[in-house]
Amino acid sequence: MKIIIIGASGVIGRQVTAALEKEHEVIRVGSKSGDILADIGMPDSIRRMYEQAGNFDALICASGNAHFGPLKEMTDKEFRIGIESKLMGQVNLVLMGQHYINHKGSFTLTSGILSEQPILLGANPATTNGAIESFVRSAAVELENGVRINAVSPNVVEDSPQYFPYFPGQIPVTMKQVVYGYLRSVLGAGTGQVIKVY
Amino acid sequence: MKIIIIGASGVIGRQVTAALEKEHEVIRVGSKSGDILADIGMPDSIRRMYEQAGNFDALICASGNAHFGPLKEMTDKEFRIGIESKLMGQVNLVLMGQHYINHKGSFTLTSGILSEQPILLGANPATTNGAIESFVRSAAVELENGVRINAVSPNVVEDSPQYFPYFPGQIPVTMKQVVYGYLRSVLGAGTGQVIKVY
Repeated sequence: MKIIIIGASGVIGRQVTAALEKEHEVIRVGSKSGDILADIGMPDSIRRMYEQAGNFDALICASGNAHFGPLKEMTDKEFRIGIESKLMGQVNLVLMGQHYINHKGSFTLTSGILSEQPILLGANPATTNGAIESFVRSAAVELENGVRINAVSPNVVEDSPQYFPYFPGQIPVTMKQVVYGYLRSVLGAGTGQVIKVY
Repeated sequence: MKIIIIGASGVIGRQVTAALEKEHEVIRVGSKSGDILADIGMPDSIRRMYEQAGNFDALICASGNAHFGPLKEMTDKEFRIGIESKLMGQVNLVLMGQHYINHKGSFTLTSGILSEQPILLGANPATTNGAIESFVRSAAVELENGVRINAVSPNVVEDSPQYFPYFPGQIPVTMKQVVYGYLRSVLGAGTGQVIKVY
């Protein structure tokens, strides 16, 4: 398969890339490094990325920013960080990508445990995660030609100890568990699923 | 209580207003009619609305637009209709309103069944609904002074037969069930809840 991985140099994207590149043609996309440079927060950048990449079989997005901060001080502008990047970035990858993806292809987006289990400072990423999960369920009933779409929803990962203090009482999941979530979406048969890695 | 109702002249808002106005001071807000005019899709309009309304005990938002249309043709621009109005409109009502709401006050937002149960043409409202539900769960753990927040998530309502064809197999709920969902949020004790009226 020809697989586009957005955020291929990130903590998760790197491991997902490593798990797929031996048996598949992987196109690495990142905002700062990769085979193609793209910022998913900008629709024009996504359009150019697809024009360069051409038709493909699977897209994995392991990228997307959101704003962590206290609700008490949060502004419209801060809240839009997650809206533009993790939400509209991933939505636009699908809206535009549906015109480039091959029959029986798949989209795999990333949400996260905060959609269901809130933490302090997490209103913005939580909101974008919930949005992505409902988007995936909805897009699955409309995508044509056997194209599938799922979201992987990880808990905090053992490889990111800097986040542990923000997730009290959560047992960090292993990177292997997270990578296998992405593999299940890409190589499996499910669609409209939220693959919870927690 | 002093209760602000956004969308007070809408199909649902009118009935919620009728159920509350006998025992409470209701401030009707709408984009075209009401005690105060405001368009929740514009942050400045929300700010002016709060400056006029002053401190309050409860806010109900029974308003918010989204785009219904085929995913196959959907554009970034169309998708942003729901993002700006039903999502950021309701989020901004809370981000700004938390500085005006009285101790032990409550916010009641509106999501909808599409967050969980997709329909054709519904990707945009589904996404905004899922976002609102996760936002409510998250905001609930950070709001101070005993302030509560919930979302009412209605199915298609018997009063809107024009929507029945888009919700095949859904048994329309009664307006009374929907109104009671809002009353449960405002007059009850729950917070961080999605009150499913289906």
